[in-house]
Amino acid sequence: MSKPTPLSGFPEFLPDQRFVELHILDRLRRVFELHGFAPVETRSVEPLDQLLRKGETSKEVYVLRRLQAGDEGGDAGIGLHFDLTVPFARYVLENAGRLEFPFRRYQIQKVWRGERPQEGRFREFTQADIDIVGRDTLGFHHDIEVARVMAEALASLSELVPAMRLQVNNRKLIQGFYAGIGATDVDAVMRVIDKIDKVPAEVVAKMLVDEAGLDDEQAQRCLQLAEIRSTDTSFVERVRALGVSNEQLEGGLEELAAVVDGCASVTSDRFTVEADLRIARGLDYYTGTVFETVMAGFDGLGSICSGGRYDSLASDGRTTYPGVGISLGVSRMLVPLLGRGVLDASRSVPSAVLVALPDEDSRAACDQIAQQLRKNGIPAEVAASAQKFGKQIRYAERRGIPYVWFPAADGSHQVKDIRSGEQADADPASWRPAAEDLAPTVTAQHSNTSPAS
Amino acid sequence: MSKPTPLSGFPEFLPDQRFVELHILDRLRRVFELHGFAPVETRSVEPLDQLLRKGETSKEVYVLRRLQAGDEGGDAGIGLHFDLTVPFARYVLENAGRLEFPFRRYQIQKVWRGERPQEGRFREFTQADIDIVGRDTLGFHHDIEVARVMAEALASLSELVPAMRLQVNNRKLIQGFYAGIGATDVDAVMRVIDKIDKVPAEVVAKMLVDEAGLDDEQAQRCLQLAEIRSTDTSFVERVRALGVSNEQLEGGLEELAAVVDGCASVTSDRFTVEADLRIARGLDYYTGTVFETVMAGFDGLGSICSGGRYDSLASDGRTTYPGVGISLGVSRMLVPLLGRGVLDASRSVPSAVLVALPDEDSRAACDQIAQQLRKNGIPAEVAASAQKFGKQIRYAERRGIPYVWFPAADGSHQVKDIRSGEQADADPASWRPAAEDLAPTVTAQHSNTSPAS
Repeated sequence: MSKPTPLSGFPEFLPDQRFVELHILDRLRRVFELHGFAPVETRSVEPLDQLLRKGETSKEVYVLRRLQAGDEGGDAGIGLHFDLTVPFARYVLENAGRLEFPFRRYQIQKVWRGERPQEGRFREFTQADIDIVGRDTLGFHHDIEVARVMAEALASLSELVPAMRLQVNNRKLIQGFYAGIGATDVDAVMRVIDKIDKVPAEVVAKMLVDEAGLDDEQAQRCLQLAEIRSTDTSFVERVRALGVSNEQLEGGLEELAAVVDGCASVTSDRFTVEADLRIARGLDYYTGTVFETVMAGFDGLGSICSGGRYDSLASDGRTTYPGVGISLGVSRMLVPLLGRGVLDASRSVPSAVLVALPDEDSRAACDQIAQQLRKNGIPAEVAASAQKFGKQIRYAERRGIPYVWFPAADGSHQVKDIRSGEQADADPASWRPAAEDLAPTVTAQHSNTSPAS
Repeated sequence: MSKPTPLSGFPEFLPDQRFVELHILDRLRRVFELHGFAPVETRSVEPLDQLLRKGETSKEVYVLRRLQAGDEGGDAGIGLHFDLTVPFARYVLENAGRLEFPFRRYQIQKVWRGERPQEGRFREFTQADIDIVGRDTLGFHHDIEVARVMAEALASLSELVPAMRLQVNNRKLIQGFYAGIGATDVDAVMRVIDKIDKVPAEVVAKMLVDEAGLDDEQAQRCLQLAEIRSTDTSFVERVRALGVSNEQLEGGLEELAAVVDGCASVTSDRFTVEADLRIARGLDYYTGTVFETVMAGFDGLGSICSGGRYDSLASDGRTTYPGVGISLGVSRMLVPLLGRGVLDASRSVPSAVLVALPDEDSRAACDQIAQQLRKNGIPAEVAASAQKFGKQIRYAERRGIPYVWFPAADGSHQVKDIRSGEQADADPASWRPAAEDLAPTVTAQHSNTSPAS
């Protein structure tokens, strides 16, 4: 077999990079669980009719076929899920009688889309979703809750990742505003405004006239609304200053202010939460709060963390399950950071200690030393062969293992910190490394990313 | 949408069951990392020519096709991996220049096979593999190492799962024995002996004559060898008593004795390691040590943890990478235990505390109490609505949350253990639950499984 080459769109990590990913997934899980979110993992496949229910993603679905099943296909009709929302909605309906509502869950899993690969777009990638779903009703305070939980999760990464900004808006606010200025096709206005980051303002204005049926003055007011941003609730007064009166608009202003207020305690100079009245999430079926997240220096990636409120996440005809959730694109965030060397791990193996091997006959004794270290929670490995100690030290160096243990035939031991060169007597039953050396640490280099603007 | 039904062969768990799975995966990961095994995750897909290289599994492969790609298929030529060995061999070749050898890795991931579903056989399931791979050479002591690491991993589960028995054999031993008695088609003998658990001994004897060309006396000696089992190295004398002399046999006896000896310290009444000279793993390309594992009371499952030594795990034509590894079928082990209620978690949510809500106006204050608890590492949630306290307590009970926190308007607080009914004053900044209440605990009921025989 000749040397294999990577498959475009299917990222893979070296072990030190995988440590970084696991470290980040562990932190996310920790925050989600502290807030009472239960773990769910769904199967990777769904019936095609489920996957295609909303139509527009059909081109991205990978269909499965058993190789020997022939063209008719024993499993024709299943495909890989392209997000974690469709499977979760199905899971809620399937298990409704065995779940307690409101039901909080987190789900950290691979998803697949047959898209053309480009930066931040993969064919296989990991998402971390949180959702809260109710039966029949779901209090608005859960919108604040999911925003705050994901904000805390992202803030828990803030010394590792570039500065991030969680941008919040509210569909009621913008739809109420558009209705209040007399727009007749509110959805069309929203779809045009959704393009505002990709198209110059004057083009958006023209599209609002041509495609959404607004007059020039209405179009200008929509653009004025879209310009409003604030990290506090001052956006409310700026919207009111535009002089539009609408009941739905008022409801949306109140909700958005509550979300921004509710996240205030989580913000820092590296993680901000902001009301941003451009955010529309045009094609998705949100009905209130909407979220997007940008990472400083990686504008081309688009939003790395998005979501919002659905009045009907799922329905079986009799019962409706409203939900609010937010989805972090773990691969979208991490792959570029790992690829550019912004993030790295301090070593490529878990081992904190390499037990040097004086000769092959000492292997059992060396195994016992390693075992004593492990009993104290210290990852350790024994040298693969009894090379000269200089070679064994270089073996440790290449892997980033910080300590080499030298056993002596008389039962005396020494341990060497190969970074400082310090060497001292040690007892395998009681010796402990510095706490930060127990597991690989994740290091971040942020000099090549600008602060969030 | 009507109520969805499960897909046969694609198991899913309720949240309390997923806690059990995560708990077990965390324990496995911990043991693997203590022994210096690095984490690797490979993409879910491989080129079909890779997947079909060994031919016999072709019928089980799920091929991927983009729904909109037409019959010619933009991605025709990729399929989901059916194990973690083929992708790992490819990963080693692809990254050989960036890995340090011998390379230890663990890999805990989903795999897919389009098999007919039955107990212990799924179309999507989780495996936990460890392998050690060398460049050109790999010391035999690594066979002992992988056996011991997986034995420790399984032993770390022993209070949760039924008694288990790791059965070890050695291809050199049995092949040398068969050659030593004069068998000309050693592989044919091995393939017949591999059926010994499914077919009566007299039928095996006849097959050895008909299919492997042995005479009756040779066939009887093969059966005598296959009957030998011991949890210590006494098997060596019993093999020697059969009076067969062969150099390869001697080498195999020595290796197998070393593996059994090396695992002796891990064994207990609930976890045994045993030389079992029936084990052949007929169709796999092993060249020395082979492993299988049975779980008491679940004989129908077959082996839940198997592996062995490959002289060539991978090769690019110039360099050969020998390896030794063992693969735990996590789903095969867990799904029946969860399905029969042998394993369960103490609650269905991570929350240790439900903060009761006296009225909706107190929500911000209750959120702050929960936040103080979380700062101390205590998972907490606030009641979804300000129902009567009796209803809020039942809400906690249904989820298995052990404590309910009652805030008072004057800033005094009480916390109630709803299992005992005990209620006491508490300060959210300093209160701590019993350590075992911090996270859901996994409980096991073994009365319905017999001990390992």
